[in-house]
Amino acid sequence: MVTLEDVAKQAGVSLATASRVLNGSTRQVGAALRARVEQAADELGYRANIAAQTLARGAGNVIGIVVHDLTDPYFAALADGAMRAAATEGLLVMVGTTHRDPEQEIAYVATLNAQRVRAVLLVGSRVADPAVTGRLRDELARYRSGGGRAACVGQDLLGVDTVAPANREGAAELARALAGLGHTRFAVLAGPPHLVTAADRCAGFAGALEDLGLPAPHVIHGPFDRDGGYAAAQQVGEDTTCVFAVNDVMAVGALAACRERGIRVPEDVSVAGFDDIVTLRDHVPALTTVRLPLKNMGARALELALGEEEAVVVEQVAGEVVLRESVRRLV
Amino acid sequence: MVTLEDVAKQAGVSLATASRVLNGSTRQVGAALRARVEQAADELGYRANIAAQTLARGAGNVIGIVVHDLTDPYFAALADGAMRAAATEGLLVMVGTTHRDPEQEIAYVATLNAQRVRAVLLVGSRVADPAVTGRLRDELARYRSGGGRAACVGQDLLGVDTVAPANREGAAELARALAGLGHTRFAVLAGPPHLVTAADRCAGFAGALEDLGLPAPHVIHGPFDRDGGYAAAQQVGEDTTCVFAVNDVMAVGALAACRERGIRVPEDVSVAGFDDIVTLRDHVPALTTVRLPLKNMGARALELALGEEEAVVVEQVAGEVVLRESVRRLV
Repeated sequence: MVTLEDVAKQAGVSLATASRVLNGSTRQVGAALRARVEQAADELGYRANIAAQTLARGAGNVIGIVVHDLTDPYFAALADGAMRAAATEGLLVMVGTTHRDPEQEIAYVATLNAQRVRAVLLVGSRVADPAVTGRLRDELARYRSGGGRAACVGQDLLGVDTVAPANREGAAELARALAGLGHTRFAVLAGPPHLVTAADRCAGFAGALEDLGLPAPHVIHGPFDRDGGYAAAQQVGEDTTCVFAVNDVMAVGALAACRERGIRVPEDVSVAGFDDIVTLRDHVPALTTVRLPLKNMGARALELALGEEEAVVVEQVAGEVVLRESVRRLV
Repeated sequence: MVTLEDVAKQAGVSLATASRVLNGSTRQVGAALRARVEQAADELGYRANIAAQTLARGAGNVIGIVVHDLTDPYFAALADGAMRAAATEGLLVMVGTTHRDPEQEIAYVATLNAQRVRAVLLVGSRVADPAVTGRLRDELARYRSGGGRAACVGQDLLGVDTVAPANREGAAELARALAGLGHTRFAVLAGPPHLVTAADRCAGFAGALEDLGLPAPHVIHGPFDRDGGYAAAQQVGEDTTCVFAVNDVMAVGALAACRERGIRVPEDVSVAGFDDIVTLRDHVPALTTVRLPLKNMGARALELALGEEEAVVVEQVAGEVVLRESVRRLV
């Protein structure tokens, strides 16, 4: 195994200098020396010891990500995108999960602040509760006033850099596509009303139907997960020709409910979701959905958090309607 | 909103005492006083502020979990089980992901050690590389010598409390069940040979077939994920009647490969996996597998890590064969 000493010797520099370059110390090393050390490391095939880097740099090397539910592949994909981007920067990532408890989200920001991590990403829908949102904003402001960096994926309500999925517009686009296939009688498995992401998708879908002069959809509220979709699907009326579940995992629950009741998809009813979760792409029938570039969104949020930009940046990310076999054209 | 002051007043104690009880400070409060404060909090419906608790207790309130890949639902389920158990103890959890790089695993232990977290869980297969395993053991020993607690889910190779899935035995049991259905010509989508979990499942399966006097299976190595299962399935010979993928996500990839090639499951070939991942249970056809109680295993590992037991505890967890529609009886 090639050691740091070997690299220092080959580069003709001190061990301390080689360590500063390769273990990512924050102490400056001149560009020429740095290049020599990197070339030597390259030639010898030296593998930096990440543990040593961490000890040298402390938690300045660590990014915190807070998500709602790790077993939901939506959050896993977003977190993984941020983690892969972090890895290319030599940063370690810690993920906290709130299980959808806003108090836990605030607690994680406080904990990550106490640990002096370099940046915090908050990933997931805001709740429609100004008091809770205000307290989270305050906690973030405290962290940032101490030099911390922050960004979020979700609604632009926290006063930090934000990657905002265009939920209303994506759902409206989907509604127009489904109406274009001849559907007129819709149900929406709408998730919980207080969850802004769910509410925006439902509102965007219903608004587009209204603009088209179509009847209002049958809106069925419930949990924002697979079992929520399964339960809500039981309440869909017989005259409905197309069901829109406001996320893919709910749509998978709806597909299971249809299967159990002998309702064929798409022959008897069409089903669509939202997100285009990669791990659900093997489902039969393949799910019509609105694709969000989740991994890129996670990576972009990390980039915004680490960037030097002073002004707060808010980027809308458009969804793309993907028609697959779970919906059919009505003559 | 009920404040800490309200609780202190109602209980007739000082604000400091109420805070010690409700914010989980490590400073002792007598049992009688504690009971009075807790009763007052209960009567008033006081909700403890987790952020304040964290600041009071520091990282002693935090558990670190290190997994290989968060987008793999196996790890998400194990981590989630540990996280839910932690939440009932008022602990926050930070998850790090290695993307299957053993250096990253060592780095996370070093980082979590530097942050003085209360316990570290390492979740996932060991690699068949004694040098790397030795360095990880050393890093864990350093952490533990400073008072840290550790446990792992996986092979018992780290000298810490371990929840060990009985991979060999589970795979052997599955082989016997499939042979009992009349299958004799098997292929194993075996994952990478250096990954102990994959190797154990493959060996257990092949060993049981040998004990039954059946031909050795066709062993096809490849990545331990969905795409790995998809690719390996392309190499399965035409005379194979049953394919065992050493985990469920690989089996899902194999099902997709069969579907694309017009091979019907189970009519033309039977397919089985391992793990019984909840989010894959909606797949069609439903997957035959070996069920591991993943959430309980994660929770149990946390319990072991936090426990007072001096001696190292190693618990084997048995898998349970679950026959579903993806396999059929021959003749």
